[in-house]
Amino acid sequence: MPEKILLAHGSGGRLTHDLVREIFLPHLSNPFLEPLDDSARLMSQGGPMAFTTDSYVVNPIFFPGGDIGKLAVYGTINDLSMVGAIPSYLSLSLIIEEGFPVEDLKRIVSSIREASEQTGIRVVTGDTKVVERGAADQLFVNTAGIGWIREGIHLSGLNAKRGDRVLLSGFVGDHEVAVLSQREGFEFEGDLVSDCAPLNDLVGKMLQACPSIRCLRDPTRGGLATTLNEIAFKSHAGIIVEEERIPVRESVRGICELLGLDPLYLANEGKLVAICPPAEADRLLEVMKNHSQGRDAEIIGWVTEENPGRVSLHTGIGGHRILDMLTGAQYPRIC
Amino acid sequence: MPEKILLAHGSGGRLTHDLVREIFLPHLSNPFLEPLDDSARLMSQGGPMAFTTDSYVVNPIFFPGGDIGKLAVYGTINDLSMVGAIPSYLSLSLIIEEGFPVEDLKRIVSSIREASEQTGIRVVTGDTKVVERGAADQLFVNTAGIGWIREGIHLSGLNAKRGDRVLLSGFVGDHEVAVLSQREGFEFEGDLVSDCAPLNDLVGKMLQACPSIRCLRDPTRGGLATTLNEIAFKSHAGIIVEEERIPVRESVRGICELLGLDPLYLANEGKLVAICPPAEADRLLEVMKNHSQGRDAEIIGWVTEENPGRVSLHTGIGGHRILDMLTGAQYPRIC
Repeated sequence: MPEKILLAHGSGGRLTHDLVREIFLPHLSNPFLEPLDDSARLMSQGGPMAFTTDSYVVNPIFFPGGDIGKLAVYGTINDLSMVGAIPSYLSLSLIIEEGFPVEDLKRIVSSIREASEQTGIRVVTGDTKVVERGAADQLFVNTAGIGWIREGIHLSGLNAKRGDRVLLSGFVGDHEVAVLSQREGFEFEGDLVSDCAPLNDLVGKMLQACPSIRCLRDPTRGGLATTLNEIAFKSHAGIIVEEERIPVRESVRGICELLGLDPLYLANEGKLVAICPPAEADRLLEVMKNHSQGRDAEIIGWVTEENPGRVSLHTGIGGHRILDMLTGAQYPRIC
Repeated sequence: MPEKILLAHGSGGRLTHDLVREIFLPHLSNPFLEPLDDSARLMSQGGPMAFTTDSYVVNPIFFPGGDIGKLAVYGTINDLSMVGAIPSYLSLSLIIEEGFPVEDLKRIVSSIREASEQTGIRVVTGDTKVVERGAADQLFVNTAGIGWIREGIHLSGLNAKRGDRVLLSGFVGDHEVAVLSQREGFEFEGDLVSDCAPLNDLVGKMLQACPSIRCLRDPTRGGLATTLNEIAFKSHAGIIVEEERIPVRESVRGICELLGLDPLYLANEGKLVAICPPAEADRLLEVMKNHSQGRDAEIIGWVTEENPGRVSLHTGIGGHRILDMLTGAQYPRIC
């Protein structure tokens, strides 16, 4: 195996074969992947199934608390979890820039293995393309995932109802600030790392305790504010959140002040928003707080009939402001 | 909608929202895609299911006979078809370079719509990322697909047995030569176009007539020679093919001679190789010839116990040579 990825590694010929047999199979092998036919042959349960995809273009590909491989696996696991599915099967497709270090590829594949072993999802099918130097930036990763939705569970951004409570599983902004710091070379006090984490186990416990949860979403790109706006828009409901209840780390708040960013729009990769009927909120909060991924959970707001489609922020000093969607991103390539 | 794609279209905020509502939904909308939750909620049949993924990086993105959108949809449909599955659900994930013309994006999404309507597969989930100018080359497309495998069918590259016949559904090399011509500005006589086409209907008819087919593969990257090598390798069998039986267009043969290429290694996007028991071969050939996608089908060879893992070519003048895998590609970014 050469030290750098060559165009020929994407040719479908001998070097593609070597790449698959020497790098992918040793880490990811399982009986579904192994035949390497044009599609994986899986056993499907009947009933409601979840299917999702995301491409990852994060820059840099290694950042404090994670890398593009882990991010891709957890990201797809989280998207499946948000509709109440148990993540089962994953596809993995890489677009690699010619000259990419083989050692870095090995690190990322190994990280994908760890993330999939930890969560019980299996990579069952994949693809690798290589493009000329300058035609892509290092490495892009696509994952698609399949899971079966728990019986009786129907979660959707369309379901929020008046009086429902809005819960958040922990601190916002850690992922985006960690990636930015690495990319821009910011030096901070403390060791801020990405919150990049799988939420499938937390969601399982939440749904077991409160099957009446209306909606789960993970506030990734666009952050908490955008996710709440999407729910408000789709449910034709208003959402009010209390600024003081939203957990933001001091270090994140500091960098936001310095750079003029709003932490409510920063991407997260291991947090969720839950909307549930008011009578369930305290119990749900307790379940979340008892889980490592929800330790810092809070009830941050509620759903109203007023201002449908709008999110309002009650500020600490008694005022309020509309929390709109941003036109663009604060920064590109965060995930 | 501006004329060019902006970084903000990938932000997850207002402009991403606009892109989804103004470009993707009008073309692709269906009840599974519409809720736009983190995962699509589908109904799954029990039993064996196929799952596959491919990323497409073809350059140029528009070429004679197709474009990157059509290629992606058909490519995934074909991969599902090759294991005997009926293609059902598709995911669609785009990585777009900042500055990409919105008109071109619309053309491609419209082409994806046509390809999915024609074949009955539905785009149920998606993702869009935008990277800075120079961080990707125009547009990369990833599709993943799900289908249910027909009862009693078990196709695999592992299954070829001594005496089996090797069938090819038509002319080889059209796709790669069409893409190359467009990219390099070659001028040919005649109007050579990519063979880019969905094979699901042809495969349905083949399996109905001959459920004992052992293996189907579409010879894309690496061409016919590489596909036969993979089957020989995985089945621990030898394969012998007769050069004179392999359909190659005069125009493709001409350009191959000019550029020093071997048509047996050129990518195809609407062809298949079938391996079947000898007693079934004539009937299968007839079924193929009666279908528009198999009109030029031929029985091109057979499986032996000699030289396991090797493919031998019997040439017109009575000689033979080993048809090995190439180390690299003849050209990059053909699909």
